[in-house]
Amino acid sequence: MISEDFRKKLHTIIYEADTRAGRLFDIILLCVIFLSIVAVMLESVASIKIVYGHQLAVIEWVITILFTLEYIGRVIAVREPLRYVFSFYGIVDLLATLPKYIGLMFPGTGFLIAIRAIRLLRVFRILKLHNFVGASNQLVEALKKSRTKIAVFLFSVVVLCVIMGTLMYMIEGPASGFTSIPVSVYWTIVTLTTVGFGDITPLTPLGQFLSTIIMIMGYGIIAIPTGLVTAQFMNEKAHLNTQACPNCGTHQHRDDAKFCYNCGASLK
Amino acid sequence: MISEDFRKKLHTIIYEADTRAGRLFDIILLCVIFLSIVAVMLESVASIKIVYGHQLAVIEWVITILFTLEYIGRVIAVREPLRYVFSFYGIVDLLATLPKYIGLMFPGTGFLIAIRAIRLLRVFRILKLHNFVGASNQLVEALKKSRTKIAVFLFSVVVLCVIMGTLMYMIEGPASGFTSIPVSVYWTIVTLTTVGFGDITPLTPLGQFLSTIIMIMGYGIIAIPTGLVTAQFMNEKAHLNTQACPNCGTHQHRDDAKFCYNCGASLK
Amino acid sequence: MISEDFRKKLHTIIYEADTRAGRLFDIILLCVIFLSIVAVMLESVASIKIVYGHQLAVIEWVITILFTLEYIGRVIAVREPLRYVFSFYGIVDLLATLPKYIGLMFPGTGFLIAIRAIRLLRVFRILKLHNFVGASNQLVEALKKSRTKIAVFLFSVVVLCVIMGTLMYMIEGPASGFTSIPVSVYWTIVTLTTVGFGDITPLTPLGQFLSTIIMIMGYGIIAIPTGLVTAQFMNEKAHLNTQACPNCGTHQHRDDAKFCYNCGASLK
Amino acid sequence: MISEDFRKKLHTIIYEADTRAGRLFDIILLCVIFLSIVAVMLESVASIKIVYGHQLAVIEWVITILFTLEYIGRVIAVREPLRYVFSFYGIVDLLATLPKYIGLMFPGTGFLIAIRAIRLLRVFRILKLHNFVGASNQLVEALKKSRTKIAVFLFSVVVLCVIMGTLMYMIEGPASGFTSIPVSVYWTIVTLTTVGFGDITPLTPLGQFLSTIIMIMGYGIIAIPTGLVTAQFMNEKAHLNTQACPNCGTHQHRDDAKFCYNCGASLK
Repeated sequence: MISEDFRKKLHTIIYEADTRAGRLFDIILLCVIFLSIVAVMLESVASIKIVYGHQLAVIEWVITILFTLEYIGRVIAVREPLRYVFSFYGIVDLLATLPKYIGLMFPGTGFLIAIRAIRLLRVFRILKLHNFVGASNQLVEALKKSRTKIAVFLFSVVVLCVIMGTLMYMIEGPASGFTSIPVSVYWTIVTLTTVGFGDITPLTPLGQFLSTIIMIMGYGIIAIPTGLVTAQFMNEKAHLNTQACPNCGTHQHRDDAKFCYNCGASLK
Repeated sequence: MISEDFRKKLHTIIYEADTRAGRLFDIILLCVIFLSIVAVMLESVASIKIVYGHQLAVIEWVITILFTLEYIGRVIAVREPLRYVFSFYGIVDLLATLPKYIGLMFPGTGFLIAIRAIRLLRVFRILKLHNFVGASNQLVEALKKSRTKIAVFLFSVVVLCVIMGTLMYMIEGPASGFTSIPVSVYWTIVTLTTVGFGDITPLTPLGQFLSTIIMIMGYGIIAIPTGLVTAQFMNEKAHLNTQACPNCGTHQHRDDAKFCYNCGASLK
Repeated sequence: MISEDFRKKLHTIIYEADTRAGRLFDIILLCVIFLSIVAVMLESVASIKIVYGHQLAVIEWVITILFTLEYIGRVIAVREPLRYVFSFYGIVDLLATLPKYIGLMFPGTGFLIAIRAIRLLRVFRILKLHNFVGASNQLVEALKKSRTKIAVFLFSVVVLCVIMGTLMYMIEGPASGFTSIPVSVYWTIVTLTTVGFGDITPLTPLGQFLSTIIMIMGYGIIAIPTGLVTAQFMNEKAHLNTQACPNCGTHQHRDDAKFCYNCGASLK
Repeated sequence: MISEDFRKKLHTIIYEADTRAGRLFDIILLCVIFLSIVAVMLESVASIKIVYGHQLAVIEWVITILFTLEYIGRVIAVREPLRYVFSFYGIVDLLATLPKYIGLMFPGTGFLIAIRAIRLLRVFRILKLHNFVGASNQLVEALKKSRTKIAVFLFSVVVLCVIMGTLMYMIEGPASGFTSIPVSVYWTIVTLTTVGFGDITPLTPLGQFLSTIIMIMGYGIIAIPTGLVTAQFMNEKAHLNTQACPNCGTHQHRDDAKFCYNCGASLK
C-alpha cells in the first residue's frame, strides 16, 4: 500500500530534526501544541468561554483533526507501528486526539480537560531539538546519579515533617486551625519548604517557638540537595572517568591516567 | 531455655538485612510501622474517627501485639539483652508498644499520641537497607564535618534575628501586630527564612523598609550554609591528595592510590 | 563648528571613567539619576504629592534640563552621532529626557511614569566604574555559559507548573479560589517557587496533598539552577588545564601558565 | 595604684580564653548576657510584665551592676584604656551598662530598650572561644573575598525590583493595594526574595502574569550568590595562595608551586 520510499520520507520529516523539513515540522507541531494548551486554559476562564466559546470549539476541532492526521502519519512512518503505539509518546499522542471524539459520544464529561492537558507532555519533544539535547542530557544524568542520596534526603524530610506535624498538632490543637495530624503535617511541609501560605499559623508562644525551629531547619537543610546536585555537576566536569582497570577492575581513574592507581598496570 | 541455634536464626532474621528472610522481615516491619502511623493520623481526623473509630481501635490492638512480639523477639535474639533494652532503638521499640497498655490503665490521656508518634523514629531503620547505607552515611559525614561552621552560622542568624526583631518591635509596635519582642523575633525569623506567613506584616514605611533589608539578607545569606555543605560534599568526592609521586613528581593522586597514575611507580 | 580638540575633551569626560574629571562626571550623573528616581517614587505617594507636589515638579524640570544637556553633550562628543543615538543607551538616554516635554503637549498621560522609570536603566552605567567591571563581567559570563541549561530548566519548570496547575484546578475548583486554569497555574508558580502568598490555598485533603508534592518539588529542584551556576563559576575560577609539562610531566597547570610550576621548564 | 601583676592576671581572665579562669569568665559573661536579653524580651510581653515586673527590675539592676564591674575591670586590665574605651566593643560594653542609669535620670524613655538590645552584640565575643575561631574566620574570609561580586549582584537585584515595582504599580494600581511606587517596590522585594507575605497580592491577570515572572526570576537568581560563595569556599580549599612571584609579581600560585607559572623564577 505505502511505498517504502514514501515511508522513509515521512519518517525523516516526522521523527528527525536534522533536515529542514523535519525541523519545520517540529516547530509547527510545537506551535499547534502550545495553541491547544492556550485554548484549554482560556476555555476554563468563565468570562472568556461565554464570549469566545464558539471560536474555541472550532479551534479545538481543527487541532483534533491535525493531531489525528499526525498520529496516523506517525503510525505509517515507522516499520513496527505497534512498538510506537504502545510507547510512552505513542499513548500520549493518542490521548491528545481523543477528548473531542469521546466528548461527542459522552457529552459533558469534565475530566476530559485532564486528558487535553496531557497534550502538554508532547511539548517535551522540544528537547529533541539540536541545541537542547546536550543540556537536557547533562541535567538528567546529574539527577540520576544523585538519585539515591536525594531519595534518602526526601525520605528524612518527610519523616521529620510527620514528627514535627504531630508535635504541632499536640501543641496548637484545633483552636489555631491545626484540626488534625494530616492538616498539621501539611502545615509543617508548607513551613519547612519556606512556602508559608499563612492560611494556618501558630498562635501559642510554644507553637511559635517550635515553628521557628522548623523554619530554620528548612532554611538550612536546603543546602543538602543543592550540595548534592552541585557536587554531581562538578564531578561530571572533574574528569574522573568510569573506565575499569583491565588488571584489577578499579574505577574512577583520572581522564589523563596512564596507569591504574591501584595496581600500577597500564590502562592503555 | 532458648537454644543458641534458634537465637542465631532469630538474630539473622530480625537484625540483618542480607538474607532473604531478613529483608522480608524488615519490609513487613516497615509496612506495619507505616500502617500504625497512618492509623494515628486518621484517628486525629474528627470525621474519620466518628465513622471508623472502631476499626482503627482494632488495628491499634493488632499493631500493639505485633510490636510486642517483635520487641520480645529482639530481646531474645541478642546475647546481651540489657544493652539492647537501654540502647536508643531499644527504648524507641519499647515506647512503640506501650501506648495501648497505658491507655488501658489510665484512659483518656492525650499525650499518648505523642508516644505513638515516636513509632515513626523506627522508620529510620530503613536506612539499614543495602542501597541506602552508603548514601545516608555520606550525607551524615558531610554534615558532621561542617558542624562547627554551621553552628557559627546558625548562631549568627539567631543573634541577627533578635537584634532585627527588637528594632522592628520599636518601629512597628503593638499596633501592627508586633505585640512583644518575642513575637517580633518570631516574625523576623519567619521573614529572614523567606517563609513569610503574612499573619503579621509591617505597616509603617520605615518598618517596610527594614523588612526589605531583612528579606534581602535572608535571600543572600542562604548562600552560606549551601556553600559550606557543597564544599564539604566536593571534598568528600574528590579524594585527591597533594602527595607527589617520588618518581615523576605528579600531584593530586587519589587518597587510596597505591601507584602513580602517571608513571606507574609505587607511591608507598 | 565644534573643534576636534573640544570633542575629545568632552568624550574623555562623558564616556571614560579613568580620568578624575570622567569619574566625577559619572558620579554626579549617578546622583542625578538616583534623585530623579526618588522623585518619581515620592510623587506616587499621595500624601507626599499633596504637600510637596510643587517642589517635585521643580526638581523634575531641573533634572529634565540636566539630562537634555547631557544628551546633547553625548551626541556632540562622538564621531558617529547616529550610532550612539540608535544604540540601546542612546535610546534610554533620549527617553530619560522626554517625559516632561511630552507632558507639556499632552497633559495627564499616566504612562509617562513608565518612561520616567526607564531612567533607572541608566544606573547600570555604574558597572562601568573601575572596581565593578571585573565582577560584573564574570557574573555575566557565568550566566551566559549556562544559558542553554537554564533555558531547559526553566522550560521544564513552566511545563510542570501548567500540568500541576491543571490538576489543581480539577481537584480544587472555583470553590477554593482556583477559578480557572490560568489562575491555578499562577497559584502553582507561587507555590513551586516557595513564595506562597496565601491569597489562594487548597482546602480539600487531596488538594493539600498535591500541594505538598508541589512544594517539596519546588524545594528540591532549586538545587538545579544553583548547581549549574556554581559549577560554571568554579570552572571560570579554576583556569586549570590538563596539559602536561614536557619536562617533568605534571598536570593541572593554569591556563595562562608559561612555565611549569614544578620544574620551571617552559610549557610552550 | 594597681600593681602590674594584678593587671596582668585580670587581663588573662577577662581578655583571654586559653586559661581555665579565662574560659570560665567568658562562659559566665555569656550566661549573664543571655539572661539580660531574655529579661528585655520578657519585659516586652505585657502579661509577664504585670506579674513579674518587679523581679525583672531586680534582675536588670543586678545585671547592670555586673556589667559595670566588668567594664571597670576591662578598663583597668589594659595598658591603654582609651584605646579600649573607643574601640567597637568598648563602646558596646559601655552602652550595655547605661540604660538603667539613664532610666534613673530620665524615666520612661522608650528607646532604652534599643540600647539594652545592643547588649546582644556582646554575644559575638563567643566566637573568641577556641573551637569557633577557625570556622568564623573562614566564613568571614570567604564573604570578604566575594564582596564586590555580591555588591554588584545586590545592586542589580535592587534596580530590578525598582523597575518591576514601578511596572506593577502601573498595572495593578491602588485598587489592589499597590498604593504607591515605594509600596509596590516593597511588594516586589517580598515576592522576588520568595518571602511572599500575601498582605498585597496582584488581582488583574496581567499583574499575576508579571508576578510569575518576578517569582521565577527570584527563584532562579538565588543561584548567583550561592554560586559565588560556594566557589569562594572551594577556592579556599583549592590551595591557590596569594603569594606574589618575587620576579614578575603574579599571584594565585598553587600551594605546591616551586616555580612561578608566568616567568619560571623560583618561588622559594
